[in-house]
Amino acid sequence: MSENGALPHRGKVLTVDTMNANVKKVDYAVRGPIVQRAVQIEKELKEGVKKPFKEVIKANIGDAHAMGQRPITFFRQVMALCTYPQLLDDNKFPEDAKNRARRILQACGGNSIGAYTTSQGIDCVRHDVANYIQRRDGGIPSDPDNIYLTTGASDGIVTILKLLTAGEGRTRTGVMISIPQYPLYSASIAELGAVQVNYYLNEEKCWSLDISELQRSLQAAREHCNPRVLCIINPGNPTGQVQSRQCIEDVIRFAAKENLFLMADEVYQDNVYAEGCEFHSFKKVLFEMGPEYSRTVELASFHSTSKCYMGECGFRGGYMEVINMDPEVKAQLTKLVSVRLCPPAPGQALMDLVVNSPQPGEPSYQSFMKERTAVLSALAEKAKLTEEILNTVPGISCNPVQGAMYSFPRITMPERAINEAKAKGQAPDMFYCMKLLEDTGICLVPGSGFGQRDGTYHFRMTILPPTDKLKIMLNKLKEFHQTFTQQYA
Amino acid sequence: MSENGALPHRGKVLTVDTMNANVKKVDYAVRGPIVQRAVQIEKELKEGVKKPFKEVIKANIGDAHAMGQRPITFFRQVMALCTYPQLLDDNKFPEDAKNRARRILQACGGNSIGAYTTSQGIDCVRHDVANYIQRRDGGIPSDPDNIYLTTGASDGIVTILKLLTAGEGRTRTGVMISIPQYPLYSASIAELGAVQVNYYLNEEKCWSLDISELQRSLQAAREHCNPRVLCIINPGNPTGQVQSRQCIEDVIRFAAKENLFLMADEVYQDNVYAEGCEFHSFKKVLFEMGPEYSRTVELASFHSTSKCYMGECGFRGGYMEVINMDPEVKAQLTKLVSVRLCPPAPGQALMDLVVNSPQPGEPSYQSFMKERTAVLSALAEKAKLTEEILNTVPGISCNPVQGAMYSFPRITMPERAINEAKAKGQAPDMFYCMKLLEDTGICLVPGSGFGQRDGTYHFRMTILPPTDKLKIMLNKLKEFHQTFTQQYA
Ligand SMILES: Cc1ncc(COP(=O)(O)O)c(C=O)c1O
Ligand SMILES: Cc1ncc(COP(=O)(O)O)c(C=O)c1O
Repeated sequence: MSENGALPHRGKVLTVDTMNANVKKVDYAVRGPIVQRAVQIEKELKEGVKKPFKEVIKANIGDAHAMGQRPITFFRQVMALCTYPQLLDDNKFPEDAKNRARRILQACGGNSIGAYTTSQGIDCVRHDVANYIQRRDGGIPSDPDNIYLTTGASDGIVTILKLLTAGEGRTRTGVMISIPQYPLYSASIAELGAVQVNYYLNEEKCWSLDISELQRSLQAAREHCNPRVLCIINPGNPTGQVQSRQCIEDVIRFAAKENLFLMADEVYQDNVYAEGCEFHSFKKVLFEMGPEYSRTVELASFHSTSKCYMGECGFRGGYMEVINMDPEVKAQLTKLVSVRLCPPAPGQALMDLVVNSPQPGEPSYQSFMKERTAVLSALAEKAKLTEEILNTVPGISCNPVQGAMYSFPRITMPERAINEAKAKGQAPDMFYCMKLLEDTGICLVPGSGFGQRDGTYHFRMTILPPTDKLKIMLNKLKEFHQTFTQQYA
Repeated sequence: MSENGALPHRGKVLTVDTMNANVKKVDYAVRGPIVQRAVQIEKELKEGVKKPFKEVIKANIGDAHAMGQRPITFFRQVMALCTYPQLLDDNKFPEDAKNRARRILQACGGNSIGAYTTSQGIDCVRHDVANYIQRRDGGIPSDPDNIYLTTGASDGIVTILKLLTAGEGRTRTGVMISIPQYPLYSASIAELGAVQVNYYLNEEKCWSLDISELQRSLQAAREHCNPRVLCIINPGNPTGQVQSRQCIEDVIRFAAKENLFLMADEVYQDNVYAEGCEFHSFKKVLFEMGPEYSRTVELASFHSTSKCYMGECGFRGGYMEVINMDPEVKAQLTKLVSVRLCPPAPGQALMDLVVNSPQPGEPSYQSFMKERTAVLSALAEKAKLTEEILNTVPGISCNPVQGAMYSFPRITMPERAINEAKAKGQAPDMFYCMKLLEDTGICLVPGSGFGQRDGTYHFRMTILPPTDKLKIMLNKLKEFHQTFTQQYA
C-alpha cells in the first residue's frame, strides 16, 4: 500500500499474456464469430431492425430439437418418472416406461437420480450398454467393466486424449485427425498441448479415407513428434461419409502395424441413409479380424445421446468402450474420472433408454418404432434433397450425404471475392458465410473451421431443418450463390 | 509384419510409463481405496459372507440423497414438467411449478431441454442467478454476463484453474489451497501441472484461517513458483468451519496486496448451523470494502445444486460468477467452455429453481419452506450431536461443526498402531479407517486424503446419515476407538 493507505494501481493477475497459452490456441468454429453474429442479428430482428429476411435459420450445429425435432415420447416418459417418482402411481404412463424407471431408480443411491453415481457410471446402465454393443455387433462380447459413461461424447473424447498426451518436443504425442474434422478434436489437442497431425479425406472419392494418405501423414509427423493416436469419425462430421467395412479393416491393420491407439467416434451410428451404405463398428470389425488384432489393438469408441434419432443433446449423455487398454492405465482412467465425481445421472438414464429401448411385445414398442422411423426417414429424405438441390447450382458441388447430419459442399469462389476476404483478414469461406448470414439469415459454418485442402472452400450445413424450411433455405442459398458469383465476377 | 504374416509381438501404445505424467500424480481420496473396499464388502454381504455388521454405512461422501434425504418436491415437479411437457395439462401440478417450467422451456431451443444451450448457460437462468446473488448480497449488483453455468461446481473450479495455469519451472503458477482441503483442488492442480501451495488452517482455533499463515505460505512458495491464486472453501470441507466477516475482509486485503486471484468455493452457503455464525459471500464483502477493492480484486465464486438443502448431486448443476476478470480473458473463457458445447440442461434448470424458489404467496411456498427447513434443521441437530458424542471419546477431539456437512475430528493413535501402519506402507489414519470399515462397516475417509499437519491424524465423517443411524454409527465408532486404543496400547 502507498502511504495514504491506497493500494498502488495494480494490473490484473490474469491477462491474455499471463493465461494458459494452450487455451489461447484453442479454436472452436462451430460456436465462433458467425454464430455470435447470428445471435446478434436475432436480437436486432426482435428490436425491429429491418433486414432482408424475417428469421435466422441456424443450420450451423447438429442440434435436432432446436430445429424442431420432437423428443421420443417413451424416453421422456421414463425420464419424468425417474425425476418425479410419484408419477409411478399414474395410470397415464405405460407399464414398460414404469419398469424402466423403477430399474434405473433402484440402481441409484437412495433411489434418487439426485445422488452421485459411481464415477464410471451406474452399474446397470453399463451392463445395458454392454448388452447393446453385443447385440449391435452380432454377438461379439462386451464387458461392462470396459464401459465408462460420460458427459456427452465430448467428455469421453477429451478424457482419452488427455491420457494419451505425454512427452516433450519431438517426443510429444501426435494425434492423427481427419481433415475436415469435427473441431472438438483440434480444440482439445491444442488445449492439451498435443500435436495435431492432419490426414486428408478424399473429396473426389466421396470423402473416403485412403491408407496411402494415412501413411504419408504419419511419416511426415514422425519427423517432429510421436504420433500415437488415430482418430476416426464414422459416419463423418462434417463430411457425411460412411466408411466401408473394407476401409475400416485397412485402418485397423494400419493402426496395428504402426502401433497407434484407435479412437472411433461413432456418435452417428444410426444415421446412415445412402443405399449400399451400412454402419460397421470398429469394435466388430476388429474382432472379426481374429485374435491377432482383437487381442492387441487398443481402441476407444464413443457414443452419445445427442445424435441419431433421439437428438437429446441437452442431457449430455454418452458412453465409451475401451478395448485392450492396459489394466494399470484403466485404473488411472477410473481415478481420473472420479475427480469430477460422476457424469450427470439424467444423461446416464437417457443413455440407458437408448441402449435398452422398447422391445417387440412391450406396450410402447409400436409408437416408439413409429417415432424413431419417422425421424430417420425424414433425415434420409433431407440428405438426398440437400445433395440434389445443391448440385443444381453452378459453382457448388456436393458429395452424397451418406450419413450423419451434414453436407459439406465445395464452393467455387471468384478471385475478386477471395482477394476482398484476404484484404479483410478473413478466410474466404468465412467471408462468404458472413455475407450469406447478413443477406439471407442463413447461418452456416465455413469450411475453414473444420480444415480443408489449401485453395478449396466449403461450408457445413446441417440437414436438420424441417423439410419445407430446408427447401426454402436451399433455394435461398442457390440464389445467394448466383448473385455472389455475379457480383464478384 | 513377420514373414508368416503374423504381427510381431507388440507392446501397448498406452502404458503407465507412456501416459500423461500429470494424470498419474492425481490423488483422489474421497473415492479411493477405502471406498473401493466398501463396495467390495457390500458385494460380499449380498453374497452371504459373514461379517460383524449387517450393512456398510457410507459416511465418506457428501451425497445427501444416497443417505436418505428426500428431494425437494417442488424442484422435482418442475423438472418432470420440463422433461415431459405433456404434464403441463395435468391438474396434479401446482401453477407455480408449471409457470417455472414454461419459462425455462421457452428459453430452450425448440422448447426442449434436449437442445444444446448456449455454452455459458441458458440466458434466463443466468439472469435468475444474478438476481439471486443481488438479493443474497443485500442489493450489490450482479451482472448476468459474469455468470457461467457449469457441470457441478467441480467443472467451474477446474476451468478457472486451467485458465490460470501458465509458466514453467520457477514461473509456474502456484495455487494456494487450505490444508485440510477438498481433494478436487489437489487433483486438478496435479492434472494441470500447476504447483500446490499449502496453507494450514488453525485447528486450535476451530479451523480458522490466519493471515500470518497465508503470508508464511506465500513467502515460501515464491522461492520456487509464481503463486497467483488463493482458494478458499467457506463453509469448509472437510473442516466444517464458517469464516467470520473479519477474516474474509483480511483475506481480500491480503489478496489485493499480494496480487492474487481469489477463488471462493461457496457450495455450502446455506449450510450454517452454529450460533453466531453467518454466511458472508466473498462478493459481498469485497464490494462493501469500497471501490479500491471492488474494482480491482479478481474473484471467481462457485455454487452448486449438490449441497445445501437440495443435495441434487446427480444433476451436476452449478454456476460461477467472475468479478473483475479481464474482458479478453473472459472471451477466452467463453471460447474454452464452448468446446464441450454446454453444461447439462437439466442441471441448469435445477440451478434456476434453487435461485428462483417459491415466493410467499405462491401455491408451493409453504410446503417448499417446510421441506427446506426440515432438512436444514436436521443437519443442524446432527452437527451438534456429532460434535457432542465424538468429544466424549478419550483420544478423539472434534471442533464444532459450524457449517457444511462434515466433521473432521483429530484422533490420537497409539505408537504401536502407527508403527504397524508404517510397516504396511499405509498412512496411520488410512490403517485406522480400513480397520474401522472391516470391523464395523463404517466407511470414512482418512485425514491423509485431505492433508493435515505432520504427526496429526484425522478422519472425515459426513453428518448426513439419518439421526437414528448417525447415533448408532457414532456409538459404534466410540466403541471401536476404545478397543483399538486398548489393542495397540
Ligand atoms: C463427430 C462428433 N463427435 C462428438 C460430438 C459431441 O457430441 P456430444 O458431446 O453432445 O455427445 C459431436 C457433436 O456434434 C460430433 O459431431
Ligand atoms: C468444497 C466443495 N467444492 C466443490 C464440490 C463439488 O461439488 P459438485 O461438483 O457436485 O458441485 C464439493 C463436493 O463435495 C465440495 O465439497
